[in-house]
Amino acid sequence: MDREKVIQEMKERVFYANEQLPKEGLIKLTWGNVSEINRELGVIVIKPSGVDYAKMKIDDMVVTDLQGNLLEKDSLRPSSDLPTHVVLYREFPTVGAIVHTHSVHSVQWAQAKRDIPAYGTTHADTFYGNVPCTRDLTEEEINQRYEEATGDVIVETFKERQLDPLACPAVLVSGHGPFTWGENVTKAVQNSIVLDEVAKMATVTEQLSPKIARIDQYLLDKHYYRKHGANAYYGQN
Amino acid sequence: MDREKVIQEMKERVFYANEQLPKEGLIKLTWGNVSEINRELGVIVIKPSGVDYAKMKIDDMVVTDLQGNLLEKDSLRPSSDLPTHVVLYREFPTVGAIVHTHSVHSVQWAQAKRDIPAYGTTHADTFYGNVPCTRDLTEEEINQRYEEATGDVIVETFKERQLDPLACPAVLVSGHGPFTWGENVTKAVQNSIVLDEVAKMATVTEQLSPKIARIDQYLLDKHYYRKHGANAYYGQN
Amino acid sequence: MDREKVIQEMKERVFYANEQLPKEGLIKLTWGNVSEINRELGVIVIKPSGVDYAKMKIDDMVVTDLQGNLLEKDSLRPSSDLPTHVVLYREFPTVGAIVHTHSVHSVQWAQAKRDIPAYGTTHADTFYGNVPCTRDLTEEEINQRYEEATGDVIVETFKERQLDPLACPAVLVSGHGPFTWGENVTKAVQNSIVLDEVAKMATVTEQLSPKIARIDQYLLDKHYYRKHGANAYYGQN
Amino acid sequence: MDREKVIQEMKERVFYANEQLPKEGLIKLTWGNVSEINRELGVIVIKPSGVDYAKMKIDDMVVTDLQGNLLEKDSLRPSSDLPTHVVLYREFPTVGAIVHTHSVHSVQWAQAKRDIPAYGTTHADTFYGNVPCTRDLTEEEINQRYEEATGDVIVETFKERQLDPLACPAVLVSGHGPFTWGENVTKAVQNSIVLDEVAKMATVTEQLSPKIARIDQYLLDKHYYRKHGANAYYGQN
Repeated sequence: MDREKVIQEMKERVFYANEQLPKEGLIKLTWGNVSEINRELGVIVIKPSGVDYAKMKIDDMVVTDLQGNLLEKDSLRPSSDLPTHVVLYREFPTVGAIVHTHSVHSVQWAQAKRDIPAYGTTHADTFYGNVPCTRDLTEEEINQRYEEATGDVIVETFKERQLDPLACPAVLVSGHGPFTWGENVTKAVQNSIVLDEVAKMATVTEQLSPKIARIDQYLLDKHYYRKHGANAYYGQN
Repeated sequence: MDREKVIQEMKERVFYANEQLPKEGLIKLTWGNVSEINRELGVIVIKPSGVDYAKMKIDDMVVTDLQGNLLEKDSLRPSSDLPTHVVLYREFPTVGAIVHTHSVHSVQWAQAKRDIPAYGTTHADTFYGNVPCTRDLTEEEINQRYEEATGDVIVETFKERQLDPLACPAVLVSGHGPFTWGENVTKAVQNSIVLDEVAKMATVTEQLSPKIARIDQYLLDKHYYRKHGANAYYGQN
Repeated sequence: MDREKVIQEMKERVFYANEQLPKEGLIKLTWGNVSEINRELGVIVIKPSGVDYAKMKIDDMVVTDLQGNLLEKDSLRPSSDLPTHVVLYREFPTVGAIVHTHSVHSVQWAQAKRDIPAYGTTHADTFYGNVPCTRDLTEEEINQRYEEATGDVIVETFKERQLDPLACPAVLVSGHGPFTWGENVTKAVQNSIVLDEVAKMATVTEQLSPKIARIDQYLLDKHYYRKHGANAYYGQN
Repeated sequence: MDREKVIQEMKERVFYANEQLPKEGLIKLTWGNVSEINRELGVIVIKPSGVDYAKMKIDDMVVTDLQGNLLEKDSLRPSSDLPTHVVLYREFPTVGAIVHTHSVHSVQWAQAKRDIPAYGTTHADTFYGNVPCTRDLTEEEINQRYEEATGDVIVETFKERQLDPLACPAVLVSGHGPFTWGENVTKAVQNSIVLDEVAKMATVTEQLSPKIARIDQYLLDKHYYRKHGANAYYGQN
């Protein structure tokens, strides 16, 4: 009973978050997907695969367990990126929701196979340091377990660079595009919006000043910590 | 009777697809045209020439035979690009609908006389390899049979490069702009949307990493074949 | 009586054309102005100066004679660019309406003090050859008769290059921005829309292929003459 | 009584000006803030911190004295940028309202740590000369009094360059973004709109003509003084 109500609310949030992606100009067509996890209930809710946004309904959202197995009969097929989400939820225990888009400015950096440098305070307010770009997947990874391997290479990137997923709630998958996440769906979508905006800013910053360096560490610290952590004083939305 | 109904439905689909072009930001003014073919009935339906989108009605759509001869009395004049469409339908038997736009990012590549390289998975999900740009037309081709020659040079490009029109459902005509197509009108318009988006992505990808190479063949294969063909598992829209 | 009705209709057309400029994304705030001439009546109608677009009414349009003298009592002040319009109407007798904007992509070329090269057929469909950029005005011209001199330098540019104003219905004033015109208000506004679009296309064309040449003369001829002149067969909007 | 009414009207203007920022495309999410001062009443009204624009109400606006101390009980927290506004109002006595955004094109120049050069008359109509970019803040300034120091470095920039805040009603804070201001809220918001537009123009101007110089001083003078000062004749909005 209670469980059903919680899952129903998850479906609503995931549905409306998916709807927000084209409205915010982050995706075209059916690109992109949003999911949310409830770790206590052992449940993930994710967008179905290939349903036209105009026809998608709340009850089309797909419910799985934490390994990605379908939990409801007559379920639609989940987004084919579900295995990536499953890996990220398993390895990033503080993450409550994940968003994947092909937003144009973020993809430009992913295709360029470059981190987005922290060139200003707009970036620092949300991302504590460069937004990392993963290495390329190998042929074997792509052929044998593509979507899981996409999750794995994100996790590998964060481990190697010793990044906290909530301090840098975004990644670029090389040659592919961005994943963002957050404590909840609202934050995860906002982080996609911010990511595309700072990606757009960074491109022209480099064009205007080709030798520009990323901002000073103390300015990065200031902006990040006035919004996050124990001493935050900046408005929390 | 049945034939009339089928043609009426073709007119509706072609009309709404044309209407979609300015809404999606793909064209200005009356630029662009959409057509659909029914090979069994021997009928092509195409946008009329030079009618303001705001005033265009479903019954203004023009019906021709497979050689482009008008089939209805009191017909408006067909789009002047009709001869290009006729050639493409004749030579590409799997194509069910064609879209021509002057969408800004695709035209930028056509004017630069360059293929759009397959720089990422957004591209690979729809276009299996680079989107080709044709050679320039010769003075004779332009002066004597411009619109037919435009179709011919597209066909020539696909034959020389041994491309399957449905595996790469788009082309850039050098110095001019894009044509896209698909099994049906919905797909053909979607391919125009995707083409302009990947064109926009590719430009800045090169700006950010001037020596970037196109994505690995196995990643191209993976993304294309998870959406198309016998082993597809990605959501079909 | 008849004269009043004709002038009232001019006011309506000029009003709605001015309203269209921000809707088409061609201007911000109150930038930009549109005028129309009736040579038989000896009347010009132009936007008033500095009136907020949201508050502007049809009857606010300003009526002048062909020298720019106000013809109605209690008239608002005309756009300060009126003297430029007066010069253009006097020297370009085939022109029926003029539009001035600060549309962003056209201004980028005007500030770069460069002609917009004819890089493709989108350009050639409307502009027969490069869109010219004027020389800079001299200090004396600017200080003593700025707005008239702006008209003079446009005329000088067209005379020196032997351009037909209706074959190339646009100019960039160096360091300033575009003026477009046409046989009537509808055409003049459309030419502003096309100009900004081809300006946007040309910038990235150069970025993608820095050594690209303008299109072949015969392709320029083909596209221009299939829409204009005695042998036109392309849809006239 | 009167005082309350005046403050209520200030709240309304500040509220609607804040609402205008996302509508004009100048900000995402809750970025940006607007304030207004009444020097006679000794009152500043400013946006609250971190309230979602969709939920923000007129009465949420925060009232402070000229040192930034809250004047109403049950007040929301003011924008964390309030100390910057307080410094600017204190040092720029002709300024009646201030706007801070992270508008994308202005931020690109701020992150590039460059003045926006006066490349054309669109710029000159509003900004008399280059829009200055401040120096970087020091580590000590950032750690000990970040928001006040942001105000101080703006004032320092204007003093060193001997700029009149109303002749150049905008600044870029290095690595951060733009502040604009004006005699009243309407002007201050308009100046943000213009700033982002000229920032966008200037970037591509440099791309098209890398060695372009700023416009001649007499053209700058002409455009600025035909709109401002004793001899203005250009429409005042």
